[in-house]
Amino acid sequence: MQEELVKYIRELFEEPEKFIPLHEPRFVGNEKKYVLETIESTFVSSVGKFVDRFEEMMCEITGAKHAIAIVNGTSALHLALVLAGVEKDDEVLTQALTFVATANAITYCNASPHFVDVDSYTLGLSPSLLRKHLNEIAEVKGNACYNKLTGKRIAACVPMHTFGLPTRIDELVELCNEFHIPLVEDAAESLGASYKGKQTGTFGLLGVFSFNGNKTVTAGGGGAIVTDDEGLAKLAKHLSTQAKVPHKWQYHHDHIGYNYRMPNLNAALACAQLENLSDFIQNKRELAECYLKFFESYPEVILHREIEEAKSNYWLNAIQLASREKRDEFLSYMNEQGVMTRPIWTLMNKLDMFLACPKSDLSNALYLEDRIVNLPSSVRI
Amino acid sequence: MQEELVKYIRELFEEPEKFIPLHEPRFVGNEKKYVLETIESTFVSSVGKFVDRFEEMMCEITGAKHAIAIVNGTSALHLALVLAGVEKDDEVLTQALTFVATANAITYCNASPHFVDVDSYTLGLSPSLLRKHLNEIAEVKGNACYNKLTGKRIAACVPMHTFGLPTRIDELVELCNEFHIPLVEDAAESLGASYKGKQTGTFGLLGVFSFNGNKTVTAGGGGAIVTDDEGLAKLAKHLSTQAKVPHKWQYHHDHIGYNYRMPNLNAALACAQLENLSDFIQNKRELAECYLKFFESYPEVILHREIEEAKSNYWLNAIQLASREKRDEFLSYMNEQGVMTRPIWTLMNKLDMFLACPKSDLSNALYLEDRIVNLPSSVRI
Repeated sequence: MQEELVKYIRELFEEPEKFIPLHEPRFVGNEKKYVLETIESTFVSSVGKFVDRFEEMMCEITGAKHAIAIVNGTSALHLALVLAGVEKDDEVLTQALTFVATANAITYCNASPHFVDVDSYTLGLSPSLLRKHLNEIAEVKGNACYNKLTGKRIAACVPMHTFGLPTRIDELVELCNEFHIPLVEDAAESLGASYKGKQTGTFGLLGVFSFNGNKTVTAGGGGAIVTDDEGLAKLAKHLSTQAKVPHKWQYHHDHIGYNYRMPNLNAALACAQLENLSDFIQNKRELAECYLKFFESYPEVILHREIEEAKSNYWLNAIQLASREKRDEFLSYMNEQGVMTRPIWTLMNKLDMFLACPKSDLSNALYLEDRIVNLPSSVRI
Repeated sequence: MQEELVKYIRELFEEPEKFIPLHEPRFVGNEKKYVLETIESTFVSSVGKFVDRFEEMMCEITGAKHAIAIVNGTSALHLALVLAGVEKDDEVLTQALTFVATANAITYCNASPHFVDVDSYTLGLSPSLLRKHLNEIAEVKGNACYNKLTGKRIAACVPMHTFGLPTRIDELVELCNEFHIPLVEDAAESLGASYKGKQTGTFGLLGVFSFNGNKTVTAGGGGAIVTDDEGLAKLAKHLSTQAKVPHKWQYHHDHIGYNYRMPNLNAALACAQLENLSDFIQNKRELAECYLKFFESYPEVILHREIEEAKSNYWLNAIQLASREKRDEFLSYMNEQGVMTRPIWTLMNKLDMFLACPKSDLSNALYLEDRIVNLPSSVRI
């Protein structure tokens, strides 16, 4: 299969010889124009028309009532957790199978990640396994949920739409409501993806996006928080700008704040990129169809596809191989051939700094960790 | 004086009518060229040649052995404190008279700021007052310093070169060495300024710079850490990129890390700006001379100038008025006339979130807080 796949991918990307990266950005619109405008206007920093426009565009695209431009996805997640009320010594539920930023952001609040298993097909937090786990370890007292084993408050739940594949987020929202756990949706990888007609990132109390260089669209570095809650939106903007109380000239600050605002220079790039988002996603969905066609001939390989009623942005295409040995062999071969592939992340609960964190049974995540591989998925333009 | 000053400033900036800001960036070099290069190369994110070049330029400019490009000054300060070994429940000495980012960064380490008084002329941490305070409250046990009153470790000291005026940093280094307190130099405002022939930011274990939009040169948003310690430099780069262990494709992380790397897009702007740094500083020093000449006729006003053996970048010119009433009157008049002026920051110990923090006698800071005002200080090109 591997030889054929190298050939197939080289044809797909019309690249007979050179290295094919996993995901690289495409700048085919107004990127240069908008970025030059910021330099000409001198508004390159955290105030400027592209920051405002970026927020408007994010509202239009996601359907959220409010969007706040943030310096990157990790900072957006940290701030969203602060806004959701996560405090020192709390626990925050999240996937063991996720990028490290999710777990790190929880520690920035001095809270502890509490790792839960994922669905073996969507690769996102599993509603049924989370319910089973909560039934075992959680108890609701007043308006809050506690871990009976540690005595700690479970202050939030952060599901992630892995590789842009929407997870069963509506069931997670219902479950979290039942247990009085605020839900912060990590949509860092799933901009433009939807579930049951609603954009990912807009199901929870707050949603978080990333515009890192490896994402579907990029701001160089950038992030966003979306929410329908006006109070939280105002607080997000306030805390992301060092909590400075507005005044003509006086410097007064009423909270511990952060330097988390997206600069206008980066927002300019992001606005140009967002103008092409639907074309890019269309293009990426076509690529996913090509991979589907290819793997029809290889039934031993599972290609992870959007579930019913979901529409993925297919940020990164993911396949499941038969074993860790097959995976390692595949990775070696493909990367030697100049076609970049990579395994999924090491599970969070295996990293030194998270060894002591509470966790559920993680059978699915452990199984998937050995077998999942990403394929080149850039927009082909 | 006020009427004459408005007239004088309008002449200096050749701006008879329009609003004159406190400090705005100037893009007169390769800014557009370099930024377009990043878009053409598609390397807009945290890897790219401008990030590397920025770090080389920072080494050349400051004379530090190592420089690490960071997303902004606040994040650079946070990371520098982590690198200096600041931990939960420690105390960190800093000025009561500083921008809020200094104190906030300390809280990100779950440490408490411990506010000390400033020198009434340099506006930076006073070596003599710090010595007096440490003699009263500090005791050295083993290789660490403790606050006898709180029992907490004093894990670092963060002096700041206010408005680009170098403080007596060599005496502070000597004092901190004596008390076994690592010194992190907040040179956010003093890029290119020197004391006794050595650049600010290079006296302590680590130094921190800011490239925010209001600084002498800008990256839109940006920061840097400098150090002569190779181990700390490597760790800074590692922790600023989510502590990912280098590997061809595997995702493994060995520390709590941060998304703190400066994007190449921003580094491109910074490189172009740094090429003009010495011209900009020369220009700003000429402006400072103009203010000196003006205030010679007004002996009731103290213009804060560089001390002997110091060379300021004169980021923001600062004057001291006779009283809080005079200051408020001055601010109202100048801002109404479209010439932006602003008071110095509210003292950190007066902000709600820092009310309970330990502090020394703060007589100088209290006096200055009522009287210091900044004047328009942009590069005139």
